[in-house]
Amino acid sequence: MTPNDAFDMVLFGGTGDLVMRKLLPALYHQHRDGNLPKAGRIICLGRSAADTAAYLDKAHGLAKGYLGSDYEAKVWDEFASRIHFLRVDANNADDYKLLADTLNEEQGRSRVFYLSTAPDLFAGISENLAKVDLNKGNSRVVLEKPLGHDLDSSNEINDAVARFFTEQQIYRIDHYLGKEPVLNLIALRFANTLLEPLWRREWIRDVQITVTEQVGVETRADFYDKTGALRDMIQNHLVQLLTIVAMEPPASMDGDAVRDEKLKVLRALKPLSPEDVHTKVVRGQYRAGAINGKPVPGYQDEPGVPAGSNCETFVALKAEIQTWRWAGVPFFLRTGKRLQDRLAEIVINFRETPTSIFGRTHTPNRLVIRLQPDESVRLYLLAKEPGNQVRLRPVHLDLDFKETFKTRSPEAYERLLMDVIRGDLSLFVRRDEQRAAWRWVEPILDSWENSAEAPKPYNAGSWGPAAASALLSRDGVAWHEES
Amino acid sequence: MTPNDAFDMVLFGGTGDLVMRKLLPALYHQHRDGNLPKAGRIICLGRSAADTAAYLDKAHGLAKGYLGSDYEAKVWDEFASRIHFLRVDANNADDYKLLADTLNEEQGRSRVFYLSTAPDLFAGISENLAKVDLNKGNSRVVLEKPLGHDLDSSNEINDAVARFFTEQQIYRIDHYLGKEPVLNLIALRFANTLLEPLWRREWIRDVQITVTEQVGVETRADFYDKTGALRDMIQNHLVQLLTIVAMEPPASMDGDAVRDEKLKVLRALKPLSPEDVHTKVVRGQYRAGAINGKPVPGYQDEPGVPAGSNCETFVALKAEIQTWRWAGVPFFLRTGKRLQDRLAEIVINFRETPTSIFGRTHTPNRLVIRLQPDESVRLYLLAKEPGNQVRLRPVHLDLDFKETFKTRSPEAYERLLMDVIRGDLSLFVRRDEQRAAWRWVEPILDSWENSAEAPKPYNAGSWGPAAASALLSRDGVAWHEES
Repeated sequence: MTPNDAFDMVLFGGTGDLVMRKLLPALYHQHRDGNLPKAGRIICLGRSAADTAAYLDKAHGLAKGYLGSDYEAKVWDEFASRIHFLRVDANNADDYKLLADTLNEEQGRSRVFYLSTAPDLFAGISENLAKVDLNKGNSRVVLEKPLGHDLDSSNEINDAVARFFTEQQIYRIDHYLGKEPVLNLIALRFANTLLEPLWRREWIRDVQITVTEQVGVETRADFYDKTGALRDMIQNHLVQLLTIVAMEPPASMDGDAVRDEKLKVLRALKPLSPEDVHTKVVRGQYRAGAINGKPVPGYQDEPGVPAGSNCETFVALKAEIQTWRWAGVPFFLRTGKRLQDRLAEIVINFRETPTSIFGRTHTPNRLVIRLQPDESVRLYLLAKEPGNQVRLRPVHLDLDFKETFKTRSPEAYERLLMDVIRGDLSLFVRRDEQRAAWRWVEPILDSWENSAEAPKPYNAGSWGPAAASALLSRDGVAWHEES
Repeated sequence: MTPNDAFDMVLFGGTGDLVMRKLLPALYHQHRDGNLPKAGRIICLGRSAADTAAYLDKAHGLAKGYLGSDYEAKVWDEFASRIHFLRVDANNADDYKLLADTLNEEQGRSRVFYLSTAPDLFAGISENLAKVDLNKGNSRVVLEKPLGHDLDSSNEINDAVARFFTEQQIYRIDHYLGKEPVLNLIALRFANTLLEPLWRREWIRDVQITVTEQVGVETRADFYDKTGALRDMIQNHLVQLLTIVAMEPPASMDGDAVRDEKLKVLRALKPLSPEDVHTKVVRGQYRAGAINGKPVPGYQDEPGVPAGSNCETFVALKAEIQTWRWAGVPFFLRTGKRLQDRLAEIVINFRETPTSIFGRTHTPNRLVIRLQPDESVRLYLLAKEPGNQVRLRPVHLDLDFKETFKTRSPEAYERLLMDVIRGDLSLFVRRDEQRAAWRWVEPILDSWENSAEAPKPYNAGSWGPAAASALLSRDGVAWHEES
């Protein structure tokens, strides 16, 4: 970007974990790289600090830890001069006058309100901002997940915000969409001739999207037990990744052009009947086991988890997209806690060659877009081994981001914050997308609620319940494992 | 192969350059790697050595030099025990009794007669072999190029050999077909789903096949001035490479299945009218210049070149294939002496994306199969640079044979000799292929003969005459240069 647009960014929940751990470090990096417009303030709101000095004192200490070797005292001092703390209670309309006065010191700036709070505050904050006219003009509001726990509650929150902000002002963040390999997938698909003609049912056998964690429920049992993996991960992150893989080429990279295409995918997701939920969705819950050789407790023994909880800590499912491009191609999604590895990847399995003239069945081609733990794109092919006879050997061509580009790959939040400042909506979730995703996911929730069946247990440190493998083997495939 | 078939390999021209420089080292390597059947003799024929001991003495000295660090005294001694020298004058029918007696010491072996002599001896040798019944049964004859200097003379030689050997016994060598990257191209095309669907006019804009040398005519002026680059390189090597790129998928890897497909390509080559020769074929001849900074003389000043020679040392041309797969896709061939680099490569240029959503025209995708100086397959793509905006950057995915396979890549002659021993004809040129290639090339020769125009001069050390670039720019493309 050309760093000439002035901005003010207001962080609600300014003393909270997300601000300290992700947002301030992201802004610091963009400041250091010279991407942040020179005239730009970061206004942190909260109740637990006395003043800017006290806030910066705390923020500085934490930032040092989070930034690690990227921390530079001189850069931090420069950066910190952007930061202003205001003692504002988000629930107290009177406090917003102070905020308005501060913002009104500057005119013509874009104003970003980042709502890093519990979603039940979104309605009140929006209303309070409107009361002091801060919803007007070049104002944008950023909403963090979870936006509700089902279609109705999500509608409620979105309706409340929509009373004061237009859809074009609302930035619903899904940080998976800001990850470099996801953006690269879009570039690979639409800037190259080589992939797009093959990116369809004729040549692709199945798609696998995996996001797994080694950690358990940690200190969040209270929230997590009411949420579960389906709401926490599938409904947003994994379904969003699916739309990026499956969308038709957009006519431009404009926010609504891209989101229109994603929406079409969401609307083409084959609805799941209760019978489908039984056969195509696997829910699991971890038992005691070991992660990296260390014993860990089962979900039911985690502090704060109610006895007999049926909360799923693992989901694997088969999604189908009813379009000319994708009919008959299963999209397998999988996520879970306490699994063997921390891994996020999108795997495109191509079909086998229609015939084999080399005497053996071949390993099909495969494209793996890795988001975590490292960022890479890897293309698996078969080549001939040197020698007198045609012996095929699997080889892979690599795009290792660190190796290839020799440059730092920005964190998802960095990019997304810059997008908000620039007013680029393309990587934010539009309301109709969110609604369509909930609509597709709800029958699963309903079906589970009405079911006597408990989640399938799996050992911590495994790859989840055996049923997750069986789900794929019924289609003659297996989950991708790094060779 | 399972090294259980016994064989006798008879090398005519046994004291000549090709045997010493290529064939014996190739057989040595295959012996060392355990691929040569244990019971296998190498019978070298000639007149300039006294006996096996004297022959081995000479061969040993030369082999040491050619093998370099691959030479091992112990292995050589083992290998040398296979070698027998017979004083045989290829023109003298009586001498063949000695050869027959020697071969008849062993029965049931496959017999390979490698005619590493001038082609005007092929007829006599074939006849002499037949007189002592050595053309019978499991006998094979290997013919080195040049097989004639036009369609008629090539027919003559082939007719003469065909009187005594069936087509299934005749192995016409084109060593470019034995190179690992060429075989890998076949594997890449037909063992992978990813390339074949794109391998056609819809997705490929043009194909470039380049084989260039830095050396000049050296000591071969006498031969070369009567031959020229079109006969020496295009008619065989480059046209053969073209058939491998362009052929339809064969139903099997059997010799005739592959060669039937290659033949179909040759027959679909669009015939060149005299007008076409003028506009689509560039012939050049090198002037004085510099190679790697060292001054070198022009062709006309090379020892043995007749004054005012019109012999071409460079050819670039545009070939077209009239099939559903390739209509409208130019195949540019280029070869020459005294050019900037020694290079052999096949370049597949894919079309641009039909539309660009990233605001700029993109570098099209490209696949480069490198045969010389190194062996590699390189795929050029566009990826997104890490950073806040979508900036595309050309990247390449590499299959570097040395790096990828960590194993020695056999020389073309090694593979082809083993193919002859095993009786695999797929990489040898069938008679009808050769005929079709001559038929396509002859109008160029005729047109030049009737033309008053001299070859276009180019400086030694350049990439040939400017007309070779103009040939491509008329189609809106340029020769591939390594970036």
